[in-house]
Amino acid sequence: MSRRPGSTLLDWPTAVSAIPTPFLLVDVEAMERNIARAARLARGVGLRPHFKAHKCTRILERQLAAGGCSGVTCATAAEAKILAEAGFPDILVANEVVHPAALAELAAAAGRTSVTVAVDCEDHVNRLEATASEHRCRFGVLLDLDVGQGRCGMVPGSDTVLHVAQRVARSETLTLEGLMGYDGHAQHRGYRERTDITVRTGALLDVERRRLDAIGLSPRVVSGGGTGTLEPAADNSVLTEIQAGSYVLMDADYGRVGVPFGPALYCVATVISRRSAAEAVADAGLKALSAEDGMPVAVDPLIDVVGISDEHVTLRTDTASRLSVGDALALIPRHVDPTVNLHGTLHALHEDDRVERWAVDGRVDR
Amino acid sequence: MSRRPGSTLLDWPTAVSAIPTPFLLVDVEAMERNIARAARLARGVGLRPHFKAHKCTRILERQLAAGGCSGVTCATAAEAKILAEAGFPDILVANEVVHPAALAELAAAAGRTSVTVAVDCEDHVNRLEATASEHRCRFGVLLDLDVGQGRCGMVPGSDTVLHVAQRVARSETLTLEGLMGYDGHAQHRGYRERTDITVRTGALLDVERRRLDAIGLSPRVVSGGGTGTLEPAADNSVLTEIQAGSYVLMDADYGRVGVPFGPALYCVATVISRRSAAEAVADAGLKALSAEDGMPVAVDPLIDVVGISDEHVTLRTDTASRLSVGDALALIPRHVDPTVNLHGTLHALHEDDRVERWAVDGRVDR
Repeated sequence: MSRRPGSTLLDWPTAVSAIPTPFLLVDVEAMERNIARAARLARGVGLRPHFKAHKCTRILERQLAAGGCSGVTCATAAEAKILAEAGFPDILVANEVVHPAALAELAAAAGRTSVTVAVDCEDHVNRLEATASEHRCRFGVLLDLDVGQGRCGMVPGSDTVLHVAQRVARSETLTLEGLMGYDGHAQHRGYRERTDITVRTGALLDVERRRLDAIGLSPRVVSGGGTGTLEPAADNSVLTEIQAGSYVLMDADYGRVGVPFGPALYCVATVISRRSAAEAVADAGLKALSAEDGMPVAVDPLIDVVGISDEHVTLRTDTASRLSVGDALALIPRHVDPTVNLHGTLHALHEDDRVERWAVDGRVDR
Repeated sequence: MSRRPGSTLLDWPTAVSAIPTPFLLVDVEAMERNIARAARLARGVGLRPHFKAHKCTRILERQLAAGGCSGVTCATAAEAKILAEAGFPDILVANEVVHPAALAELAAAAGRTSVTVAVDCEDHVNRLEATASEHRCRFGVLLDLDVGQGRCGMVPGSDTVLHVAQRVARSETLTLEGLMGYDGHAQHRGYRERTDITVRTGALLDVERRRLDAIGLSPRVVSGGGTGTLEPAADNSVLTEIQAGSYVLMDADYGRVGVPFGPALYCVATVISRRSAAEAVADAGLKALSAEDGMPVAVDPLIDVVGISDEHVTLRTDTASRLSVGDALALIPRHVDPTVNLHGTLHALHEDDRVERWAVDGRVDR
C-alpha cells in the first residue's frame, strides 16, 4: 500500500485484518493518484471512463469528479441501465447490443439520459430503430470500426461503413454521433509498440472521418483508446475521447508494460499451509482472482506465485521470507476487470485507516 | 441438450430465449443422469458430494436424494456455514481453515451439525481447539496428506503425521476422524493414468492407515477422490468416501478425458457481430466463463471458439454454419467450478420445458 511498502504488509489496520479472506482491498490514495494522473494526461482529448473495469459507481463518481470527462462508458446494456438509474449522464455502450432483453435495458437507460451504442452492421441499426420506436426513445450511434483488434467492428475503408452511416442518418430515432475504434490489440504492449499502433489507428480513423465528411455526415465523436494507449492517444488529435478504465485500480498485466499508473487493488489472502521453508499455500484461488492471462503477483518480492486452483494459490518463497500459517498475503491481480467481477465488495482503505465497503454494484445477476 | 441435440440449439423453449445473455443453463435431465450414475458407480464406497463445484443447495439436495452419501463436502468455512444453516448434515470442509473470521464461521456451522475439517500442521490443531473452546463446540479432524498434488497436506510417512494425529487425539474438543488424500493431480488425465495414480494413492493412504492403527488411532474415515477418479477409486478399498463434485454439471475439461458423465451445463450467448462467413463474435466473455484452462467449447461442431476477452468470445465458423447476428450459441464451459462462481443464478431447464431459477446460494460476498 502507498504508506505501507515493504514485504510483509502485516502492518495493516485491524479493520483490514478482521475481513475474512480472500477479499479485494483498494488503496484509495493510490487510486486517487491514478485518477488525477489520467485526467491530467488526457486533458487535450477528454476521458470517457469505462465502468466495466471496476463496476463500482463509487469509483466512477470519483473519476467524473476529477474533471475532463465527456460522459461514461460501459460494456453492456445492463450496465447502462444501472448507470442511468444511478444518475450518471451521457452513457456510451461501447459494444453491439442485440438480445431483445438487452435492447429493452438500453431503452430503460435511454428513458433517463442520453445513451449511445456501437453498431457494425445494418441489422444492429434495425434492432435499435425498432427498440426506439417500441419504447419511444432515441439512441446515439457510433460506427464501430475494427482498427486491428479482430473482434467486432466494420473493416475501415469498406463500403459497409458508408452504407451503415447513411442508414443511421436516415433514421428518425437514431443520431449518428460518430466513430469508434478500440485498439484492444495495442493495450498490453511496450510503450513504443503502443505508440506505433496508436498512430496507425489514428490514421485509419482519420481516413474514415474524411470519408464521412465527404458524404456530409461529419462525426462529432471519435471514441477509442484504453489504459495502455491513454498516454500516446492523448497526443492523437483524431480521438475526441478516450475510453480507459483499468488505470484506476490497475493490475499486474498493465504494471508489466509500464503504463504511468500505480497498483491500487490487492487481493488479500491468508497463508493456510506451509510444508517447507520454500513452499506455502494461501486461500485465494480462481474464485477470487482471474488467471487466464497468468498468475497474480505477490507484493512481497521474496514470494513467487507458481500455481492457482479453484481455492488456492501455491507459493514459492525465499528461505529469508518468514511467511507463516495465518499471515496475510497481498496479491496484485493479473487482470483487473474479470477479477473485480468475482467480488461483490471492494474494501476501500483510506489514508486515515478507515475501511469502507464499496459495492460492486454494476455486477448483474442473470 | 439431451432432447435437443444437433448443431444450432435454436429449438429452445421461449422461456430460455427470453433470458438476457450470457447466462448458465442446466439441462436437468442430463444432470439427473450424472447424479444417478455417480451414485451407482460409488455404491461400494460412498459419495460425499462436493458443494464447491456448483454452490447450489438445490443441486446438493438432489445429490443426497440419490442415496449412498456419507455427508457433504465443501471448500470453505463460509460454505460450511451456509450448508449448516440450510439444514445439511455432516459437513466436511476439505481444506485448512486459518483466518479468525473463517474459524468463527466454522464454529457457527458446528453449532448446527457435525463439522469435520482438514489439518496439516499443529498450528491448525491449536487454532481449531481455541475456536472450539471459545464457541463451546466440537470439530472432527481429518489429517490432510499430500498424495502427489503438491498443494496442502503432510508428507505421507513423515513423523509429522503421527505427531499431529497424537496431538488431535489428546484434544478434548477435537475428534480424530481419519485421513484425507485428495488426488487433484490425477483428475484431468486419461483413464489409464487416473487408474494408476489412484492405485498409488490408495497404497500411500493404506500405509498411513496402518501407521495410525499401530499407535491405536485407527481412522474411521479415509476421504479422497474426485470426478476424474470416481470410477477407479470406487474399486479402491482404502477410501471410505469420494469427494466428487464436477460430475453433476460437468465441463469441457472433464469431457476431454472421458469420464463417464455427460454435459449438463451450458453458457448461452448471443451472436452480436458477424463480419464474414468465417468469423463471428458472441456476448459471453471472461465475466461469464472461466478460461484459465482454455476456451469454452461450442456445442455446434461447425464453430470453434478461438478467443475470449472480458465480454466476448471470438468464433471461427465453417461457411456451412448459418450463424447470424441474434442467434443463440451454447458453450460448454472449460472449467465448471470457477464458471458457476461467476453467476448468481442457474437457469434449470426441465424435460417439460419449464425453466426454474436456482440460486448459486453458496457464493459469498466478502
